Amino acid sequence: MNERDTLKINKQNHLEIGGVDCVFLAKKYGTPLYVYDKAYIENVCDAYQKTLNVEYGLGKISFASKSFCCKDILRTIKSKDLGVDVVSIGELKTALAVNFSPENIIFHGNNKSYKDLEFAIQNKVGLIVVDAYSELDDVNEIANRIGVIQNLLIRVNPGVEAHTHHYIQTANPDSKFGFSIGIEAINVIKKALDLKGLSLKGLHCHIGSQIFEEKSFEIATEKMIDFYALINNQLGVDFDILDLGGGFGIYYYDGDKKMNLSSYQNFIKKITTTLKNKIEQVKIKKPYLILEPGRSIVGEAGITLYTAGRIKEIKDLKNYIAIDGGMFENPRFALYQAKYSVVAAERMNNPATKTYTIAGKCCESGDIIAENVSLPEIKEGEILAVLSTGAYNYSMASNYNRNLVPAVVMVKDGLDYLAVKGQTYEDLLKNDL
Amino acid sequence: MNERDTLKINKQNHLEIGGVDCVFLAKKYGTPLYVYDKAYIENVCDAYQKTLNVEYGLGKISFASKSFCCKDILRTIKSKDLGVDVVSIGELKTALAVNFSPENIIFHGNNKSYKDLEFAIQNKVGLIVVDAYSELDDVNEIANRIGVIQNLLIRVNPGVEAHTHHYIQTANPDSKFGFSIGIEAINVIKKALDLKGLSLKGLHCHIGSQIFEEKSFEIATEKMIDFYALINNQLGVDFDILDLGGGFGIYYYDGDKKMNLSSYQNFIKKITTTLKNKIEQVKIKKPYLILEPGRSIVGEAGITLYTAGRIKEIKDLKNYIAIDGGMFENPRFALYQAKYSVVAAERMNNPATKTYTIAGKCCESGDIIAENVSLPEIKEGEILAVLSTGAYNYSMASNYNRNLVPAVVMVKDGLDYLAVKGQTYEDLLKNDL
Repeated sequence: MNERDTLKINKQNHLEIGGVDCVFLAKKYGTPLYVYDKAYIENVCDAYQKTLNVEYGLGKISFASKSFCCKDILRTIKSKDLGVDVVSIGELKTALAVNFSPENIIFHGNNKSYKDLEFAIQNKVGLIVVDAYSELDDVNEIANRIGVIQNLLIRVNPGVEAHTHHYIQTANPDSKFGFSIGIEAINVIKKALDLKGLSLKGLHCHIGSQIFEEKSFEIATEKMIDFYALINNQLGVDFDILDLGGGFGIYYYDGDKKMNLSSYQNFIKKITTTLKNKIEQVKIKKPYLILEPGRSIVGEAGITLYTAGRIKEIKDLKNYIAIDGGMFENPRFALYQAKYSVVAAERMNNPATKTYTIAGKCCESGDIIAENVSLPEIKEGEILAVLSTGAYNYSMASNYNRNLVPAVVMVKDGLDYLAVKGQTYEDLLKNDL
Repeated sequence: MNERDTLKINKQNHLEIGGVDCVFLAKKYGTPLYVYDKAYIENVCDAYQKTLNVEYGLGKISFASKSFCCKDILRTIKSKDLGVDVVSIGELKTALAVNFSPENIIFHGNNKSYKDLEFAIQNKVGLIVVDAYSELDDVNEIANRIGVIQNLLIRVNPGVEAHTHHYIQTANPDSKFGFSIGIEAINVIKKALDLKGLSLKGLHCHIGSQIFEEKSFEIATEKMIDFYALINNQLGVDFDILDLGGGFGIYYYDGDKKMNLSSYQNFIKKITTTLKNKIEQVKIKKPYLILEPGRSIVGEAGITLYTAGRIKEIKDLKNYIAIDGGMFENPRFALYQAKYSVVAAERMNNPATKTYTIAGKCCESGDIIAENVSLPEIKEGEILAVLSTGAYNYSMASNYNRNLVPAVVMVKDGLDYLAVKGQTYEDLLKNDL
């Protein structure tokens, strides 16, 4: 268990996160419960930004809020002076609701509508990342009408295949996102350079998710800089910004590489070293570097607490523990067969004596949270914790089976507070006529 | 397209549902929009219940509300004098909110907590379907305390493998649900018969989802009645009720069998014929028959309307249409690689000239709604419809990427009304502290 910096086992043999006993948290707030260690998040933010400052000196870490978006986390990101990526008006409004500086907001998405773009431009969003040809005309028209010049990036596909689950690969030439490096990208860049209402600052790429191979980032960086040189050569343009996206892997279970702050610092070092060498080689202007980690900032910072419910032992076959959560608050096993570590939060050091499948409470056989989990023999009513649930759990939560979205609690240095209230049945029925 | 009874092409060459023009609906309510033909739902309800009455004479159709649960649909179900299945307190509260008779409510679920059971018993739910050994003690204790006798079914697995996607098979002996027919089920039945606070009325099984093979239901029915005879023989008990669950398939796309009202009537006839013959053969009391269709009542009744957004043509590879919806309001492609039919709602009779992939607007490559869709050349801004989205779309909707859950509109005989209001950004941020 103790692979994660943020978790400890206390004297009561309980799991502790950010200095707070998880059994205490489960009793105080009820289960299921999302819990985040705010100090861990702050530490990762600092490690990223400081390494970027030291190693490259010109750039910003921008938090990909699709991994976990609520007002509280964006306050933390803002307090660390990081930027934020948004992919919808909902995310943008959340950032604006905590007075995030609009110039530090980057607006992504493969299908931003005219109204979305209008709202973003009216609210002075720092960068819009254009993902479709017709978006350029919309941005130009809106900017001209409002009387501003909108700063843009264009999303391109450098064609690097990152080693990751096929669902979350994104840099393949067959992608709903962006433009392939080459004639396709050159055409859209030319068009952007022709339009008066916008200022093209550079290019963005994102090569995938849950990547552990530093080499993937190095290759992508080199391909992007080669393309910057080509654009400089062909069109005489020196881009100001390079946005290399995110995708750094996190540790979910013992099949994953163990990660810590220095792992992430290493990613940055590899990228910036490659970048500096390549710039030197092709002789272009040093661009302002944007990196967009999401999962790696919040993923390992978060855990989910559950109460063990009905236990079913099928002789010679399988032991099921049903928990009071499920795919409505963590659909990642159902979606990607994602693997998680599960611990008995009340008896951390007790030896594992049984193998369990952790099943959700949804009326669907595919509603599983983890398989082949080694635990002490579990009794109904005790608290379990699923680890590394900080990214893409709360953000993907639904009301499937009319279950309620759980609360989010933050802990730091032994103190806890409610960050997002749990949904109520009144909320659930609110829009029903 | 015209495989579905509920859909027509009108003189404007537009798609029409329940006598209402879909382009009109898209303009009136905005997109994405869930639209249901209420008349179609009522017709399926009538066809089911009447066939059950005529062919068997003793039983009830109970709507599996997990497929689509809101106050409005439960009012319709209630008006048809059908029962309703619920799998959570959220679904139960929705039924109670429209004054559904509690005796017509069946409470399912693999992990009903003590509090869930207490709420259900206090509210006089007709049947609780016990799915775990320890549930019996909880029900017994609560019933004794309140001073009632709670009617129960027990969920068993007849071991029939229905031909369906492996995620949604449920009658395998390795299941988080129920007890295998045999010694495991006999033990739990014995225990139930011993407890004073409850009255065991019979058994429930559910062999899977999206089943087209009538034979699966026939085999399951025979296995259940054989087991009823065995229980009668061994324990001297004549069960009053037999609940055979649901699972009837619906037509999603041209790889599926075309279904209509008489297809569903045929399912019932096959089941009741098998049941009557088997009862005759083994000489047991004729049980009250409960069937629990969900998907087949609402699935084909519903469609989702979208506005085509950014269009991306990758030369010699693929054409993408990005829509203003995606996996946040229909996650079934991402979850099950489910297939859907897509039509150009404004130009229904125009010849198909292009093949498209319909992509959602979520920032994830796996956010696809349909692949290899033949359509006329689509322009940004025109209305598309995805068909057979009535089941497990609204019910699985999330706020992924902080997108909003769309509104639900009902149409009937040329009239439309709002059934569920679309979420607002105020709703989205309501619980954020």
